[in-house]
Amino acid sequence: MQYELLDKINSPKDIKTLSMSQLNKLAAEIRDFITHCVSCTGGHLASNLGAIELTIAMHYVFDFSTDKLLWDVGHQCYAHKILTGRRELFKKLRQKDGISGFPSPAESEYDQFTVGHAGTAIPTAIGLALAAEKIKTAEKIVAFVGDASIVNGLSFEALNNMGLVKRQLLVVLNDNSMAIDVSQGAIAQFLSKVRLSHTYEDLRKRTNRILEHLPLVGRKMEGALESFKRTLRMAITPNRLFESLNIPYFGPVDGHDINSLVQIFKAMSNLDRPAVLHVYTKKGKGFSPADDDPTRFHSTGPFKINGELESEKPTGKSFTAAFSDAIVKLAGENDEIIAITAAMSDGTGLTKFKQQFTSRYYDVGIAESVAVDIAAGQAKMGLKPFVCIYSTFLQRCFDQIFQEVALQNLPVVFCIDRAGLVGADGPTHHGLMDIGFLRMMPNMILIAPANGVELELAMRFAAESQGPVAIRYPKEEVDDSICPEVFSQPFELGRSVTVKNGKGKIAVIAYGSIVNEALKAAQSLKADNVDITVINARFAKPLDEKIISLLRADNSIITVEDHSAAGGFGSAVLEAAAAAGADTAKIRILGVGDKFVQPDKRAAQIAGLGIGVDGIAGAVKEIVEAH
Amino acid sequence: MQYELLDKINSPKDIKTLSMSQLNKLAAEIRDFITHCVSCTGGHLASNLGAIELTIAMHYVFDFSTDKLLWDVGHQCYAHKILTGRRELFKKLRQKDGISGFPSPAESEYDQFTVGHAGTAIPTAIGLALAAEKIKTAEKIVAFVGDASIVNGLSFEALNNMGLVKRQLLVVLNDNSMAIDVSQGAIAQFLSKVRLSHTYEDLRKRTNRILEHLPLVGRKMEGALESFKRTLRMAITPNRLFESLNIPYFGPVDGHDINSLVQIFKAMSNLDRPAVLHVYTKKGKGFSPADDDPTRFHSTGPFKINGELESEKPTGKSFTAAFSDAIVKLAGENDEIIAITAAMSDGTGLTKFKQQFTSRYYDVGIAESVAVDIAAGQAKMGLKPFVCIYSTFLQRCFDQIFQEVALQNLPVVFCIDRAGLVGADGPTHHGLMDIGFLRMMPNMILIAPANGVELELAMRFAAESQGPVAIRYPKEEVDDSICPEVFSQPFELGRSVTVKNGKGKIAVIAYGSIVNEALKAAQSLKADNVDITVINARFAKPLDEKIISLLRADNSIITVEDHSAAGGFGSAVLEAAAAAGADTAKIRILGVGDKFVQPDKRAAQIAGLGIGVDGIAGAVKEIVEAH
Repeated sequence: MQYELLDKINSPKDIKTLSMSQLNKLAAEIRDFITHCVSCTGGHLASNLGAIELTIAMHYVFDFSTDKLLWDVGHQCYAHKILTGRRELFKKLRQKDGISGFPSPAESEYDQFTVGHAGTAIPTAIGLALAAEKIKTAEKIVAFVGDASIVNGLSFEALNNMGLVKRQLLVVLNDNSMAIDVSQGAIAQFLSKVRLSHTYEDLRKRTNRILEHLPLVGRKMEGALESFKRTLRMAITPNRLFESLNIPYFGPVDGHDINSLVQIFKAMSNLDRPAVLHVYTKKGKGFSPADDDPTRFHSTGPFKINGELESEKPTGKSFTAAFSDAIVKLAGENDEIIAITAAMSDGTGLTKFKQQFTSRYYDVGIAESVAVDIAAGQAKMGLKPFVCIYSTFLQRCFDQIFQEVALQNLPVVFCIDRAGLVGADGPTHHGLMDIGFLRMMPNMILIAPANGVELELAMRFAAESQGPVAIRYPKEEVDDSICPEVFSQPFELGRSVTVKNGKGKIAVIAYGSIVNEALKAAQSLKADNVDITVINARFAKPLDEKIISLLRADNSIITVEDHSAAGGFGSAVLEAAAAAGADTAKIRILGVGDKFVQPDKRAAQIAGLGIGVDGIAGAVKEIVEAH
Repeated sequence: MQYELLDKINSPKDIKTLSMSQLNKLAAEIRDFITHCVSCTGGHLASNLGAIELTIAMHYVFDFSTDKLLWDVGHQCYAHKILTGRRELFKKLRQKDGISGFPSPAESEYDQFTVGHAGTAIPTAIGLALAAEKIKTAEKIVAFVGDASIVNGLSFEALNNMGLVKRQLLVVLNDNSMAIDVSQGAIAQFLSKVRLSHTYEDLRKRTNRILEHLPLVGRKMEGALESFKRTLRMAITPNRLFESLNIPYFGPVDGHDINSLVQIFKAMSNLDRPAVLHVYTKKGKGFSPADDDPTRFHSTGPFKINGELESEKPTGKSFTAAFSDAIVKLAGENDEIIAITAAMSDGTGLTKFKQQFTSRYYDVGIAESVAVDIAAGQAKMGLKPFVCIYSTFLQRCFDQIFQEVALQNLPVVFCIDRAGLVGADGPTHHGLMDIGFLRMMPNMILIAPANGVELELAMRFAAESQGPVAIRYPKEEVDDSICPEVFSQPFELGRSVTVKNGKGKIAVIAYGSIVNEALKAAQSLKADNVDITVINARFAKPLDEKIISLLRADNSIITVEDHSAAGGFGSAVLEAAAAAGADTAKIRILGVGDKFVQPDKRAAQIAGLGIGVDGIAGAVKEIVEAH
């Protein structure tokens, strides 16, 4: 790929000398470049294609080597990465030794925070602004937020506290009328109603009116704002949300019109108080397959440039797909089962359920906390809510799970997808803490199935439980062929299953699908005449007593988990052994150590962290050799 | 105390036959009863005195044996408890074998959720309403929310999702213009501006207008609402927040006028869609000392009925007070230190700091998540934010601490007050999980000081740290007289201090102020000729290597902590020992077991859970006897 303009852009300084028509050409080149690169690497396509003009205009007006640009969620920062010296590295997006798909200060001075969760841009921007006020520096601060993130409670808490800031702070609300799935909630409805009521011509007129009148405001906003508002009242859409929060609001304007954006950013950069600029963009703009189906191309694997997905090759079935089948099956049998997600119906595998059981499906938008509390209310009335949230986002609901579910002992089922290492998305998206934070809560039952068969059995067990149950499973394919004779046994509370009985005195106890690695290790060890026992723990809480009996019978135990080694499954085994006075010297814990795990293939991460087949076999050999 | 009416009220049914003037008399009696009881037991006074008429009116109109009443935060439910068969038990408020200060389904069918954290009433009410729709039951649902809770992100997420509900759901917004401290943020300012602009006469007129026009709406709201709004526009205060969220809003009305409230509740109970009723009340109403200083009487210890506080007797200095002194001292030395709280300036000991360093003090309202993110932004710019939040409320910021602080390795200091058992407030308020959830995060340093001297040293250490530090301390008095020679040594990363060297082979390693219990145990054991070593761990992360050396030198170790035994300090010791191949069979963990701890005196809780002097001495003896 060769590009006339883009190939010469090595830093944002290089775009400042371009003409408006060149900026537009640059946008087209970046669009082409992103589409080609993501077709090879996979990544977030649609949202990035929608934000190109905005990104160029921001970099044209601001100098983000000193000014601060904060991305919310962060998956719309590709053009920004490409413009800030990472064009070549972008070809290795989300790969080892390449660059992350999210902002990363380790990569560039142009990135402020490593992010991936929603709602953080405005509050961290407030923090930067308050500090800048205090240390008396003059950098401009821009928070770039999507319409899906603005409804998150964290964004709202920040907007409500915007009044703390008495200096410039620009919030760019990038409104593409679509969360990851279609946006939910009153704010989203309001935005989309406003959106539908405007023609392209309206947007252009409004831009002009804003530009005409901004000089009235000038730098000093406080006094000028009221008269400004009166003048503009007929020209700008009244936005009651921001008005009620007392935040000056401008827009909506066309987010693909670089020329206008540049003028507006220039004018707004001089305001001496926080303000919101509402911008319309089109998700997937300029790439017709993504245009047609932005959800499909929200986060994609590699694909052919005509829009056909490379990964349509017959690969295995994912845990997500197994969940998808199981919840539909269970819901067909049990009327009380309902499902709740936080803007992730596709990601969590609820699309089929949603189609088949529309009235039993709830999507609350990117608002994980409220999803849990709504489920608690539903469970209180006798329903059986399945709350479907990725492990990393479940961190947003720690307190709700504790107080509204565990403390009340309500039968809410947490289906925790993307538990463990997630591969390319990196440290913001790994789910390495769920066992640790959930097992501290009384009443919680924790399960990890080994494959798709077990996932369905676990869900069946959970549907019958009288208290809360959390089921974790990874971003991985299921292997339903292994050990059907043991893995098809129904779940019993706190009972593990023995996958392989060894003659030796070493047992590997694995929690979740990582048991497959343990089985492979057992096979490879057999060649060396080491015959180990392999146990599929199934439950992290309550733990099977059998594990302690093994210690008493003088076995060495190796625990394996796709989770932080601190506070996780192995730690639970240690605690139980210590409480029983068993010889915990014989326990070795394999898990993720005390560091953030960078993007790579999931299999490579597992191998690199020593929790794969080689790591397990190695740990066994160490024990054998020590004896 | 004898009361003409109250003494005959054994269930809410008993008030339904009373006349309006009797209801008013009942309110006066309840006011007197609450004031007298709380003067003996301590508790939340001001907020409860403000909610009496509202509570009576709700119980008069609704039947909460089948209808559902959800309290937000829950500390304003005293009148409700008194009316629902708990009048006698109320005299033992917040005491063992008495009743909790918060709603508790274990106590009464009239309570739905055990709560204590903000923002849960509306989302759980949505859950109940959705379930009622599905199972086709007709109970009325009422969520009772204070103005301080409405600004919490969870409340906002719920309001944004209110549209999911297509049946009756009444949100009563109890506006007393005051969070625990004075309310913060744009919404609070807006509410207080509206409040100031109304006279008592306005409220009365508005009530009449609402009552006149409600029949226009009748049961079917959807179609009628627009015309209703037009009719009422001049009579009701436009509330842009609720309008932007598309939620019908009525009010504000006088929250002490039982007669009007009864009529309005009757009318609004028939609406077939969610609606908000905004009610003005006066915190501390009717008890002049609380009237004058509601913050002082928000949550109080026992006091004399003239308002003088019983606990003014010369008791010791609390950790909170020690923190208060230390932060003022450190801030005087270091310009970069700033402090952030979430509506808890008094509770966390920031009042003095706020007075002395006004421009370096930030209160974000009951919005813990945003407090952390703002701090992250400030730290990013080189400031040194001290985030002051109770342990139990820090659970609301798990994900923000993880992503915006730990992952970025920013030097934010978390000052975690009320860590461990908190006594009378019970299970919603204990801080038993902070060690467990924080120690899973790379970059985090975890400290627990033993007393006030160590707290200051720990804060001094934290102020110099280049990454995040979390300091936990309990709701307890400090004993600065103990071991001044060791406890006054500056903190060094990952270094414990040995408080007492024993001749025997048993070491008790305590994390935090509980080391005092260990010292007392050591003294009592000496009488039995058992001479143990006592170590003050200081750090839970990183752990002192010395602890493992002790195991290697064939010592038995007992760890003690005021925290869940699962995932806590002891668990960290076990993990380190297992990783080092040390003999973990010699480790015994004392901590809080897998159950919710009911209200009682903190000392009694510690003793009862076996982490006090007797529990420690007992554990030592078991080891001695086993040998």
